[in-house]
Amino acid sequence: MESTAPAPADQVTDEDVRAWLAATAERIPVRVKEVALDALDGWGADPATGAISPRDGGFFTVEAMEKHATVHGSISHTNYPIIVQPDMGTLGILMKDLGGVPHVLMQAKVEPGNAAGAQLGPTVQATWSNRDREVPYLAYFTDPGDRRIIADVRQSEQGSWFFRKRNRNVIVEVEEDVEVLDGYRWLPLRQVYALLAEGDTVNTSACSVLSCLPFSVLGAAGAATGDAGGDAGAGFRSALLRSCEPGAPARHGTTEILSWLSRARTYGDMNVERIHLKDAGMWHVSEGRLTHRQFQFFEIVGADIDLGGDRWTQPMIRTAADGLVVFLVRNIGGVLHVLVNSVFEGGYVDVAELGPSLQCVPSFYDELPPDAYPRFLKELKEADPAQIHFETKVTDQADIFQAASSRYVIMETDLELEGSGDGYGDFRWVTVGQLAELNRHSHYLNQQSRNLLCCLQSMCVSD
Amino acid sequence: MESTAPAPADQVTDEDVRAWLAATAERIPVRVKEVALDALDGWGADPATGAISPRDGGFFTVEAMEKHATVHGSISHTNYPIIVQPDMGTLGILMKDLGGVPHVLMQAKVEPGNAAGAQLGPTVQATWSNRDREVPYLAYFTDPGDRRIIADVRQSEQGSWFFRKRNRNVIVEVEEDVEVLDGYRWLPLRQVYALLAEGDTVNTSACSVLSCLPFSVLGAAGAATGDAGGDAGAGFRSALLRSCEPGAPARHGTTEILSWLSRARTYGDMNVERIHLKDAGMWHVSEGRLTHRQFQFFEIVGADIDLGGDRWTQPMIRTAADGLVVFLVRNIGGVLHVLVNSVFEGGYVDVAELGPSLQCVPSFYDELPPDAYPRFLKELKEADPAQIHFETKVTDQADIFQAASSRYVIMETDLELEGSGDGYGDFRWVTVGQLAELNRHSHYLNQQSRNLLCCLQSMCVSD
Repeated sequence: MESTAPAPADQVTDEDVRAWLAATAERIPVRVKEVALDALDGWGADPATGAISPRDGGFFTVEAMEKHATVHGSISHTNYPIIVQPDMGTLGILMKDLGGVPHVLMQAKVEPGNAAGAQLGPTVQATWSNRDREVPYLAYFTDPGDRRIIADVRQSEQGSWFFRKRNRNVIVEVEEDVEVLDGYRWLPLRQVYALLAEGDTVNTSACSVLSCLPFSVLGAAGAATGDAGGDAGAGFRSALLRSCEPGAPARHGTTEILSWLSRARTYGDMNVERIHLKDAGMWHVSEGRLTHRQFQFFEIVGADIDLGGDRWTQPMIRTAADGLVVFLVRNIGGVLHVLVNSVFEGGYVDVAELGPSLQCVPSFYDELPPDAYPRFLKELKEADPAQIHFETKVTDQADIFQAASSRYVIMETDLELEGSGDGYGDFRWVTVGQLAELNRHSHYLNQQSRNLLCCLQSMCVSD
Repeated sequence: MESTAPAPADQVTDEDVRAWLAATAERIPVRVKEVALDALDGWGADPATGAISPRDGGFFTVEAMEKHATVHGSISHTNYPIIVQPDMGTLGILMKDLGGVPHVLMQAKVEPGNAAGAQLGPTVQATWSNRDREVPYLAYFTDPGDRRIIADVRQSEQGSWFFRKRNRNVIVEVEEDVEVLDGYRWLPLRQVYALLAEGDTVNTSACSVLSCLPFSVLGAAGAATGDAGGDAGAGFRSALLRSCEPGAPARHGTTEILSWLSRARTYGDMNVERIHLKDAGMWHVSEGRLTHRQFQFFEIVGADIDLGGDRWTQPMIRTAADGLVVFLVRNIGGVLHVLVNSVFEGGYVDVAELGPSLQCVPSFYDELPPDAYPRFLKELKEADPAQIHFETKVTDQADIFQAASSRYVIMETDLELEGSGDGYGDFRWVTVGQLAELNRHSHYLNQQSRNLLCCLQSMCVSD
């Protein structure tokens, strides 16, 4: 147990945090051993449906969905395994003003899918499966009392792997002293953002919650004044800060953006049904793994996990290769705009969400000619380094993905690029403020966009 | 075909509109004959599941859902039939400024469930089932081009009868001349609101779309000035107009309201599954009707319909008795507040929505003592007439409900009433402006609340 009085902001260096994460990883060593999915201790497949679930209920079930879609001019009909789980999860961050500096209570989180050891997680990262355990600090979020709620919104998980799964993302401000338990630390928000840039250090749950922070509490207000210089970087930063303001001049009004998404959802013609896993024809369990008969998109494997002596078994998702997630940004009249795509994934609650400009697995296209690339992959590969304003890596949910990580990029362009119809998407320029406004509500920004929004916010407060 | 130039506002009286509706009803007589549900021409029951659907697909299917919920302190486990339909419907209203007065293009709509003949419907009331027909004016909404979109949001249907059904509610402003087809008329918005008060005259689809109108386009701005008098009615009206303003002082901040709903949805513990109709144990087809074995909640009956010579058959819902839908309102510091409840219905996409203060079938309680009433029914029955500021009747969707109508009431109170825990709900005071802000997005206001919001808006512009 550490002292209840948090250390002043200037006493915790980035190096301290890295050392703390390393010490935690050393104290709680992770060992994940692959075992056959069909021989997973405590789990079994339903003979009638094929669904793989824990014998004592809870946690999650591996089932399947069938998706038939005619969107963006192309028809797809496919089925694949998905994770089904009650959407009772809480991802919460406690926030506190210490000496005029916004701080967040972060935990050093060790998870089976974290290749690099411990990462910074939110104060609470509680899913239904662990609600029977005592989760520290959970009561601040389930029963906030009179405390100020800074954000509270149920956000989606990745719609390609999770069926209509949402977690409550919530930020609560405390004014009173809070006991800081072992494994937790108050960190300046600015420091968390700085560590985000290091890659695979701030976990995706933390990014998702932080993306819900209103611009007004970022502590970035003073930063705009340091921006009088005329160089290109300063112009970019000025345009970014202007873009965060709620009333910034936008290419499209918010009602117009809402209408665009409403039309996509209504006429997008996507039909999704949960089906029996055994009816997902192209998938089968082979050599102890649930795998596609033809392509190696991803596999579901059995894992025997030892987390510092805490042992259990579960299925985990093993992706074929790391992902790439990109926001193209453009200065339109002094206001930075972000290019969003309407993304249709079978697991979304409401058909389509606002996704990044580009979201793909680049290695799938290694052997293919550029005209087979998803849109903007070619532009990214040919980008001048000066166009890349931010870059990091974020690990996918490490409680179920096995060492999956994506490269997140903010890339400037001067191309127009709006529109649709080539089978890859339908794109619109929006301001950061519009993204933040929509992000107060469920079913707008997908997980990848929220992580990128968190990156943009971090650029607002960086030195 | 009428002239393309709409008549000036002052040339269409309420009496003209009534005569137009009556003439339409006379021209398109409606005859609905009950036939046995299990002998419905063109429809059949799936032997394996019991699902009742049209043999040629499309339209809708009668299936069932099972709902297990622990909310507001009470446990319920129940199953009942529901309507399943792809959510591709469009409810659209064209709007136009004529001589400084906002007008809406309404149609005289004849539907099988309209007991009183024709009602005012939106410009477009198109569900998936009639998308193969040519729907007049639909292209203004599917492809609005550069026209101004005033509102565009997918809104829920009643969650007790429809499974995750939404319709796109959209309002588009036109500046150009629009050909006015037979059966359609430009009416001043103010006149539609006046006719709403007459009861069973403006249909529920029109109410739902109109509820999405931002306060700024209601044309109510000038009305506040006529409010200087000190009598009680003027004070009420002044508080109502202040409440509509986006920044009006509210009992709870909007983030606080969002958080309250987010917690209800996350921890409300409602589980809903679609089940086979034949597994809905308390329901069976008896004497040609799908009916509950014990209680008469509602029945699904077969209908042979003749609408002015257009003939078809379909199942229809016959409710046991008319409903009652009430917003309690209270002047808090000069700003009218509305008491909303968090309502859990199995058919909602996102667990719970903001419902009225009271929503019930009063005749169910005729034989019961007041302490068995749902909350606020006693207060309503004992209300002083001066507390009732607005009252009307709205017919439920007349394409599927058979002559079902609910009484809508705006009732003032000076009681505090917030809170939860007695098994009937969890209540919060919100401003009209907050309701309107949330109503820009899906899954917040349920259908009954949207109709009441439309009533409140009508009170803003009434003389």
